[in-house]
Amino acid sequence: MIAVHLENGVVTTRTLPVPPRPEGFALLRLLAGGICHTDLELQRGYYGFAGTPGHEFVAEVVEAGTRALLGKRVVGEINLACTHCEWCRKGLGRHCPNRTVLGIVGHPGAFAEFFTLPERNLHVLPDEVPTSRAVFLEPLAAACEILDQVAIPPGATLAVLGDGKLGLLIALVLNAHGYRVHQFGHHAAKLAITARVGVVTEMATEMARGALPIAAYDWVVDATGSPEGLRSAAAMTRPRGTVILKSTVHGAVVMDTAPIIVNELTLVGSRCGRFAAALPLLGHPLVRVEELIAARFPLSEAPQAFARAAQRGVLKVLLE
Amino acid sequence: MIAVHLENGVVTTRTLPVPPRPEGFALLRLLAGGICHTDLELQRGYYGFAGTPGHEFVAEVVEAGTRALLGKRVVGEINLACTHCEWCRKGLGRHCPNRTVLGIVGHPGAFAEFFTLPERNLHVLPDEVPTSRAVFLEPLAAACEILDQVAIPPGATLAVLGDGKLGLLIALVLNAHGYRVHQFGHHAAKLAITARVGVVTEMATEMARGALPIAAYDWVVDATGSPEGLRSAAAMTRPRGTVILKSTVHGAVVMDTAPIIVNELTLVGSRCGRFAAALPLLGHPLVRVEELIAARFPLSEAPQAFARAAQRGVLKVLLE
Repeated sequence: MIAVHLENGVVTTRTLPVPPRPEGFALLRLLAGGICHTDLELQRGYYGFAGTPGHEFVAEVVEAGTRALLGKRVVGEINLACTHCEWCRKGLGRHCPNRTVLGIVGHPGAFAEFFTLPERNLHVLPDEVPTSRAVFLEPLAAACEILDQVAIPPGATLAVLGDGKLGLLIALVLNAHGYRVHQFGHHAAKLAITARVGVVTEMATEMARGALPIAAYDWVVDATGSPEGLRSAAAMTRPRGTVILKSTVHGAVVMDTAPIIVNELTLVGSRCGRFAAALPLLGHPLVRVEELIAARFPLSEAPQAFARAAQRGVLKVLLE
Repeated sequence: MIAVHLENGVVTTRTLPVPPRPEGFALLRLLAGGICHTDLELQRGYYGFAGTPGHEFVAEVVEAGTRALLGKRVVGEINLACTHCEWCRKGLGRHCPNRTVLGIVGHPGAFAEFFTLPERNLHVLPDEVPTSRAVFLEPLAAACEILDQVAIPPGATLAVLGDGKLGLLIALVLNAHGYRVHQFGHHAAKLAITARVGVVTEMATEMARGALPIAAYDWVVDATGSPEGLRSAAAMTRPRGTVILKSTVHGAVVMDTAPIIVNELTLVGSRCGRFAAALPLLGHPLVRVEELIAARFPLSEAPQAFARAAQRGVLKVLLE
C-alpha cells in the first residue's frame, strides 16, 4: 500500500505492507484526510517525528471484530487510551498518560491507504454527511472543546483572534452555538467565510494601528499561534475574564504576567475534544466547513499536497 | 506629622501637614503598618511611584462623618473605588477602572501618622484581636481571594510554591480551611512556621535535584515571584488542573505554552481579596500570623525598617 512518510522535514510516499489488525482494532481504508497545522509542525521536526502522519480522516472499515462495522464510513478519535487508568475511567482518555496518538505519537497515522484504530475510537457517519464535510470532524471537536471546558453564558459576546483554519472553525462553531462572535484576522478572504454566516469580522491590520479593543471582552480565544496573539488576547480581556489558548506557540513565549494577575484573568489551555460533541455540527447549515477546502490531492501526490498546505494563507488541503 | 516618603529608590521621613478629610472619608491615626513586597517594589521604582507608601495597616479613627466610628480600631480595604461603575455595582470595586489604591496608585498611603480612607472601606476590629495580628488582614484577604475565584473541593490536596510572606500566609489560610497543603520552599526556618500547624513542607533544594513532583497536583499556587516558580508550578500540575498565579513576576517571563495547552491547564491570576472573607481568620488558632513578624520599628525609623525588610529571607517588618 502507499503511505506518506515524514522524516527530517521531507515528505515522501513509500510502499509499505498493509498493517496487521490487533485484537479490538479495525482495519481502515482512507477515503479522505485533512492536512493540519500539527502535520506541518511534525514535518518541521517538532517532537522528533518520523513516520506516517495524519489524524484528520474519513475511512471505510474493511476488517473488524464487530461485524456491524464492516463497510461502514467512519471517523475516529485520535487518542489511543489505555482504558483502565484514572483518566480513562473519568472519560478523559485524551489525557491518558499511556496514550498513543494517531499519526502524532507512537501510532502510524491516517495518511496511508490502510491504517488501524481501536473499534471503540470509531464513530459511524450518517449517510447524508458528505465525506468532504466529515473530514473536518477532528478540528471541529477541538473547537467544541472550548465549550466543554469553559461555561460561557448563552448569547455572550466572544472574541476570536486568528483567521487560520482553527480560528475559522472556532468562529463557525461558536457562532452556530448562538454566541456573538467578533473575529480578528489578517486575511479578508478568510474572514469572509465566517462573515457570511454572521460573524462580525475585523482586519487585524487595524489592531496594529492601535485600534485593538483593550479590556473589551469577557472571553477571548487565541487561535493565532503567535506570541503576539497571546499578548493581544490578554490585553483584550476584561478584568476577571477568560483567555482560551487554542493554538500552541512553539518555543519560548515572552509574557508579562502582571496584567494577568492585576486583572485576575483566567487562561485556559485547550486541545482536542470529544467527537460526540462535534458530530451534530456536521449537519448544521451555519458550519460551512467545505468553504475552507483549498485543494484536493490524491494520496500519491502527498509531497505536493504538503507543499501547498505549507504555503502562507492556504486553508485546508485534503488527501484522497 | 511624620510621613514616610519613597522616591527614586530612597526611603526618607518627612514632616507633612495632617491631610484634610474629604466628605465621606475618615481621618485615621496609624497604630501598626506592615511592609509588603509591593512596598519594596515601589521603592525599586516600579510603577514610577513617588510619595507615601503603605497599604497594610491597623489604625484608630480620629475624625469621621459617622460618629459611631470615632475612636474605633479599624482595618481598611485598599482600593478606593468610584462606587457607580459596572464593576463597583457587581461588588468588584477591586477592579474599578477609576480606582485609586492606598499607598500604591493616586492616594497617599498608611505609613504616616495620619491618613484618610473612605468610611465605606473600613472594618471595625473586635477588641479581642491584637493589633499585631490584625495588621496581616490585607495579605490574608489576598490569600482568601484564591478561594473566592477557584472552587476547590473540601479536603483536596494542594501545592504551594514559595515560602515568602505571601506563600506562608497562603499555606496557613488553605490549611485552616481544611485543605491538605504541600508547601515547597527554600528556607527551613520559614517552612517550620507552617509545618507546626500541619502543612507538609519540602525544601525546594530537593526540587532542584530533580525530585520535583511532576503532574502531581490538581491545584498549585505559585507564590514564588520568580519565572522558575511559574514554570515549576505548570510542570507540577496534573492535566486539566489549575495553577493560581499569586505573585507578580516583574519584567518578561519566558514561558513554553505547549504544556499548558497539551495538558489543558487553567491559569488563574489572583490579586487582592475581600476583607470580610479574611476577618474570621484573625481568630483562627491555626493562622499563626504573628510568627511571621521579623522586626518592629517606630515610624520615624522607616528607612531602617525598609532596609531590614529588603534583606534576603526577612519576613514581616512592622512600623508602629
